[in-house]
Amino acid sequence: MSKLTIALDIMGGDHGPPVTLPAALKAIQQHSELHFILCGKETLIAPCLQSLTTEQRERISIAHCEQVVEMGESPRSALRTKKSSSMRKAIELVDEGVADACVSAGNTGALLTLAFYILKTLPGVDRPALISMMPTVDHHKVFLLDLGANVNCTAEILFQYGVMGSVLAEQISGIQRPRVALLNVGEEDIKGNAQVKHADQLFRQAAEINYIGYVEGDDIFTDNADVVVTDGFTGNVALKSSEGLAKLVINELRQHSQANIFTRLMAKIALPLLKSIYNRVNPDQYNGASLIGLRGIVVKSHGNASSDAFYYAILEAMKEARIGVPEKIKNKIETVLLEQL
Amino acid sequence: MSKLTIALDIMGGDHGPPVTLPAALKAIQQHSELHFILCGKETLIAPCLQSLTTEQRERISIAHCEQVVEMGESPRSALRTKKSSSMRKAIELVDEGVADACVSAGNTGALLTLAFYILKTLPGVDRPALISMMPTVDHHKVFLLDLGANVNCTAEILFQYGVMGSVLAEQISGIQRPRVALLNVGEEDIKGNAQVKHADQLFRQAAEINYIGYVEGDDIFTDNADVVVTDGFTGNVALKSSEGLAKLVINELRQHSQANIFTRLMAKIALPLLKSIYNRVNPDQYNGASLIGLRGIVVKSHGNASSDAFYYAILEAMKEARIGVPEKIKNKIETVLLEQL
Repeated sequence: MSKLTIALDIMGGDHGPPVTLPAALKAIQQHSELHFILCGKETLIAPCLQSLTTEQRERISIAHCEQVVEMGESPRSALRTKKSSSMRKAIELVDEGVADACVSAGNTGALLTLAFYILKTLPGVDRPALISMMPTVDHHKVFLLDLGANVNCTAEILFQYGVMGSVLAEQISGIQRPRVALLNVGEEDIKGNAQVKHADQLFRQAAEINYIGYVEGDDIFTDNADVVVTDGFTGNVALKSSEGLAKLVINELRQHSQANIFTRLMAKIALPLLKSIYNRVNPDQYNGASLIGLRGIVVKSHGNASSDAFYYAILEAMKEARIGVPEKIKNKIETVLLEQL
Repeated sequence: MSKLTIALDIMGGDHGPPVTLPAALKAIQQHSELHFILCGKETLIAPCLQSLTTEQRERISIAHCEQVVEMGESPRSALRTKKSSSMRKAIELVDEGVADACVSAGNTGALLTLAFYILKTLPGVDRPALISMMPTVDHHKVFLLDLGANVNCTAEILFQYGVMGSVLAEQISGIQRPRVALLNVGEEDIKGNAQVKHADQLFRQAAEINYIGYVEGDDIFTDNADVVVTDGFTGNVALKSSEGLAKLVINELRQHSQANIFTRLMAKIALPLLKSIYNRVNPDQYNGASLIGLRGIVVKSHGNASSDAFYYAILEAMKEARIGVPEKIKNKIETVLLEQL
């Protein structure tokens, strides 16, 4: 396979190098086409590379960065006062065409702001979106966006999100003419706020998009749609409230499991299953959420991610880089906009 | 206990009289202070009352109504063309002071529209809200509003919702100085849309309300707050997506339960527990959601409710009538508004 270069923000996340470096080492050992630029403190990174072979070591370069964007830091502060942060460097390498994609487990707000500021959006895209796959019944997957990049969405932005989501479902999941739906409070035409109703009209005019109309919150977890579009406020609340419910279920089962030998056996079987569902609903914990609509690839791993989760986020970045997701989105947006002329 | 009169929309819901009448009969048998006005088709209702004692029968009157608001009917059509519907009659009886409260399992949109049109909002309240209790870890309860009465909420409306929710948590759950929180996409001050940020300021100025700031979606199911306030769009999506996740969990456990004798045993213990959680997350299925902020009490039972669920909705209406919820809300809103002068 042809060479792929990924820039990693080694310092990002709740744990930093102890989590990100093992994932990087694993990836470099398993994928011979992969090259890394590790952004962070050289004194922390270099000693950890000694277990690699010379060939593997040669596929890694270190971009030393003095600064780290803190997890609680405001996006404004990250943008203004952290000009040599590892997060910023990783994004800049994508912008300069040196890296094909970047991955960070750092502060989401700062990552969104820096990526938007440095990479800019694609032509025809007003705002980037945070997208991830949600599990559904029958082991189908639904792309849900926006998960919180943009809390105020006009109808046009919602429409662009639908186009972008459609590209991901087609390219990443291989779905022909993915079914795109708008999240609403009812399936009837009269339901919803002004932006959603207007976005519905925009979708109906776009023959390029397989728009299926409104779905409700519970449809996120059914296979009624392949792409569910909503604003970043609602999407974030839907994601987090589902996580919250999953935690509640795990908690209740655990409490009940202490009653007797049968309930303890029940818990032994049910809890691992529930935890796997929880991890799938908390998708950036698993394989990362992608920031799309930008001129480069940015994958966000969860701040509290394990090495395994960070490794999956690297795989996701590799996949998007091979596909050339930004180019595919650009082409689709162009086609849809031309269609409307 | 002093006499309580409740108007029931007997025709409402997916099933109508076969579900609503048994609930009414059970309630009249168990609560000697209770009087009912049963709104609906007399020919359907009268024969079902024969099992009652004379004393019980005397506490029931029938308000014959020719029309029924259909489940899929638009609110506009219900308002304009169904002037003698059972739903409308039940609300009118509250408006006329003949009934202390009403209960319907009918079409939510129509119920909201008719109740708003007929009863009007209390002074200082711009819009009614749909509120219900959500389960949390440690068997605490959180009042969540708005669940879909009003998809576009200004900061002022969100603030009024917080005041109303606070009254319910205090009066119904007996919580002293209930903790009121705004649902947001992060806990930091900079997060959120304009309405939420402005509502945050309004709450901070109201010493009468125990405002604790922002919470995120997963906090709906923790005991971090007693009242969680959001607009009807987000609240509805949060509720429905949590329901969807609960269905997914039940579905996955059921699929896995077929593997062997141990997994079947696991399912036998875990599934009833999960279903009870599902029913609690789907709260109007259980004890009804209340429409608050109006000059009268309207309790909404789920369209697909069982007789048990409709019975619980009746109990909820009795509780609110005894407390005099609208009066309590009116007083609290007045106090808060005076404080701001």
